[in-house]
Amino acid sequence: MASVAPSGATGEPGGLRGSHAASVEDVRALLGLLAYTELTAFTRLAESSSQAPGLHERLRLARRASNAVERQEWVLARIEELGGDPEAEVAAFDRTYADYNDRTTPGSWWERLLKGYVGHGVADDFCRLAVDGLDDRSREVVLEVIRGGESDERSVAVLSAAAEADEVLASRLALWGRRLVGEALGVAQTLMTSRPALARLVADGAARRGVGGVDPSSPAEHVPWVLGQLTAEHTRRMGRLGLTA
Amino acid sequence: MASVAPSGATGEPGGLRGSHAASVEDVRALLGLLAYTELTAFTRLAESSSQAPGLHERLRLARRASNAVERQEWVLARIEELGGDPEAEVAAFDRTYADYNDRTTPGSWWERLLKGYVGHGVADDFCRLAVDGLDDRSREVVLEVIRGGESDERSVAVLSAAAEADEVLASRLALWGRRLVGEALGVAQTLMTSRPALARLVADGAARRGVGGVDPSSPAEHVPWVLGQLTAEHTRRMGRLGLTA
Repeated sequence: MASVAPSGATGEPGGLRGSHAASVEDVRALLGLLAYTELTAFTRLAESSSQAPGLHERLRLARRASNAVERQEWVLARIEELGGDPEAEVAAFDRTYADYNDRTTPGSWWERLLKGYVGHGVADDFCRLAVDGLDDRSREVVLEVIRGGESDERSVAVLSAAAEADEVLASRLALWGRRLVGEALGVAQTLMTSRPALARLVADGAARRGVGGVDPSSPAEHVPWVLGQLTAEHTRRMGRLGLTA
Repeated sequence: MASVAPSGATGEPGGLRGSHAASVEDVRALLGLLAYTELTAFTRLAESSSQAPGLHERLRLARRASNAVERQEWVLARIEELGGDPEAEVAAFDRTYADYNDRTTPGSWWERLLKGYVGHGVADDFCRLAVDGLDDRSREVVLEVIRGGESDERSVAVLSAAAEADEVLASRLALWGRRLVGEALGVAQTLMTSRPALARLVADGAARRGVGGVDPSSPAEHVPWVLGQLTAEHTRRMGRLGLTA
C-alpha cells in the first residue's frame, strides 16, 4: 500500500495543483454515482420501513427514505447545471450495488440496520475521497448529501445498545460487519478499475493529500491506498457501535 | 340504497347545520386514517419503484413515494395542532389495509399500477365523503392531500395506452379492477361499522348533501349510500382508462 505522507513531504505536494482539477465529465460521473447511491438508500430504507417492528420505526424510516430522494434530486439538479443528462449519468451506474445486495441478504432486523450503516458509510467515504478536485458548488452538493445521509444517530444508538446488552448478538454483528465491508470494498475496487473518471478523481484526491509512491498518471495504482482509507473509516465506524471491525 | 337528492329537497337541508359540526376527536380520527393511507401509499410506491422496469420509472416512483411521506407529514402536523398524538392516531388504523393487500397481490406490472390507482382512489373518495363537517383548516389539509395523491396522470396515460393497444390485457385489467374495487369497498364498509368517528363524519356529509331516508342518529345506515358513491366514482375512474368497471 502507498504510504500516506503529509502534504509537502513528497515530490508532489497537493498545493501545487489547480484547485479545480477535475473535468466536468468526471464531476458528472461522480455525481451520477452519488445520485444512484441515494436512490439505492431510498429503496433500502423504504424496505426497512415496510418491515419495521413498529409504527414509530416505520414512520421514521419512511421519513429517511423520503430524505434520500430529496438528496438525490439535489444531485440530479447539479448534473443538469453542469450540462449533463441526469438520468443518463445515474443509469451509467445501474446495478452497481446489485451483486453486493445479492450477497448480503440480512438475516435479521439488526443485520439489516448494520448493512445500511456499513454499506452507505463506505459509499460516502468513497465519494469523499474523490471530492477534492471538484468545483466549489459540486463539492458543496456532494458533502451536503453525505452529511444528510449520515445523520442516523438513531441506528447507532439502537445497534450499540443491542450489542452492549447481548454478547452473542455483538459477536454475530461484528462478523456480519466484516462480511459487509469485504463486499463493499469489492464494489469500490470494481468502480476504481472500471470507471476511469472515478479513478482519476480519487487519484487526484490522493495526490492532494500528499500520498507518495504512486504514479499519478496511473490512477489504478491508488486502489490499495483507497481500500486502506475505506477500511480505516470502517473501523472507526464500527468502534462507534462498540463492535470490533 | 338511500336516494341522493340535492340539498334543500329533503327535510334536512345541509345549510341548516352548523358548518363545523364534527368533534375534534372525530376530525383527528379521519386525519389518522388519511395519514395511514399516505404511509401505505409510500410503501406501495417504493415497492413499485424497486420493481420498475427501467430507471426512469424507478426515479419517478421514488419521487412519488417521497411526496406521499411529505403529505403524511402535513396530516401529522395538523393532528398535533388539534392537540392529538399523531402516532397514536395513525396507530389506531394499523393494518387497516392488510387484508386488502393480502387478497390483491398484483400478478404483473400493469396490475400493480391499477391497484394503486383503484385502491388509493377509493380511499381518497372515502375521505372526501367525510370531510364536509371539518373545521376549515383540517378540511383544507385533507383536500390538499387528496389532490396531491391524485396527480398521477402518468399512470392513467400508461394504463390507458396499454389497454387500448391490447384487448386481452384490457379485459384482464377490467376484471382486476372489479376485484380490487370489491375488496376496497369491503374495507370502507369495515371502517364505517368499526369506527364510529368515521361513520359520524360520513353521515354528516350525507346529511349535508341532502340524502334523505336514513336516520342521522344511526350512522351505519349510511353504509349503502357510501358504497354507492364510492362505486360511482370508481366507474368514472375506470372510464378514464377506457376500461369497463
